[in-house]
Amino acid sequence: MFDIIAFDADDTLWHNEPYYIEARHELEQLLSPYQPASVVERRLLEIETHNVNLYGYGIKSYTLSMIETAIELSGGRVSGAEVRQVLELGKRMLSASVHLMDGAESTLAALRQEYDLMLITKGDLLEQGDKIERSGLAGYFRRIEIVREKTARGYRELLESHNIRPERFLMVGNSLKSDILPVVEIGGWAVYIPYEHTWAHEHPAGEVSHFGYHQIERLEELPGLLARLKQ
Amino acid sequence: MFDIIAFDADDTLWHNEPYYIEARHELEQLLSPYQPASVVERRLLEIETHNVNLYGYGIKSYTLSMIETAIELSGGRVSGAEVRQVLELGKRMLSASVHLMDGAESTLAALRQEYDLMLITKGDLLEQGDKIERSGLAGYFRRIEIVREKTARGYRELLESHNIRPERFLMVGNSLKSDILPVVEIGGWAVYIPYEHTWAHEHPAGEVSHFGYHQIERLEELPGLLARLKQ
Repeated sequence: MFDIIAFDADDTLWHNEPYYIEARHELEQLLSPYQPASVVERRLLEIETHNVNLYGYGIKSYTLSMIETAIELSGGRVSGAEVRQVLELGKRMLSASVHLMDGAESTLAALRQEYDLMLITKGDLLEQGDKIERSGLAGYFRRIEIVREKTARGYRELLESHNIRPERFLMVGNSLKSDILPVVEIGGWAVYIPYEHTWAHEHPAGEVSHFGYHQIERLEELPGLLARLKQ
Repeated sequence: MFDIIAFDADDTLWHNEPYYIEARHELEQLLSPYQPASVVERRLLEIETHNVNLYGYGIKSYTLSMIETAIELSGGRVSGAEVRQVLELGKRMLSASVHLMDGAESTLAALRQEYDLMLITKGDLLEQGDKIERSGLAGYFRRIEIVREKTARGYRELLESHNIRPERFLMVGNSLKSDILPVVEIGGWAVYIPYEHTWAHEHPAGEVSHFGYHQIERLEELPGLLARLKQ
């Protein structure tokens, strides 16, 4: 039924968003002499959104946006020592350990018996490469692709380059915008596993209704769903 | 004789290092109230080298290292407005136009008549992807690979995944460490085109002597060299 089951990585196989939220809380703390937390939260999101076209995704981009936020919200009064703390926040994020989602490893181990597995993640090449290595999951995947953006066109090109027909391709992920909608758009299958802290940018408009679309609550439900789809 | 001729991008097909040098000069200017230019130059290189394992290559990494240098060399006295200038330096680098090397386009156009061409560049996925797009050269390449590091193992895996035998692979680049030595190590061919400002990290120890190794001074000499090799 499927030639390849592909997984997103951040917030699908391992936790990612909590590190960003934790760093934001530390920034709010650091900037509390200048502005209330709610202002820091809102302005950081705006600056991040504005910078994403130039900087892309990832921790280095986030660090640069945090520094920009600190300068702006302090009216330029932020000290060298405070900016250094932001740099250190970023470095801590870059070397943080990878926490797998419940059941990630056992689910991949079970599925690998029957399917070829692939990892398709977007973001910074070095950061994602490091996380994949540290996750200990690399060995489960026949292919690992780190891409700039996950668009319908991007998926189409990826599948073509691997000679995979969309109707035999299943993507599993936590982002409707990146993992689900573009895949059903090109005629593939998609399993949505919402993550509690999904990033505000990622919320799409409307609802998904498509024969290839399914939703589960936890990664461990995936083998059961695939067994039902095969019937 | 060759199935693929692969090119490095930065400082082989287009200028890259001058943008870094120019940004460094602006940083030296900015930090002149705190330290002499020679100290800034030396300390920035040390901080960059130290950070490269965590940050990787690219403009965002360089910007973060410039900010760290500014904080350290000012003894924390650098102002928010000064840090903002460093952020802006980085943003300017990210959106700078791409200046092709002399003869880049005509050389690729000529070689494409006879060979499959490939681009193999390391660095930040988003930054390199943008530059390739803006260079206008993407259409000359059958394959474009953006990789984390250019090592013998990396080239071996890349060639295997494309079913290319090393003895039928030729790599063209300006870095002995990244483009030349690992390729001759795995039994491939390599053409070295030194760039005047090659980054200090890239200088290897010793000299290269290998049947597959050749050096030219300008990209435009490449078709002539290939014609001689074929005889």
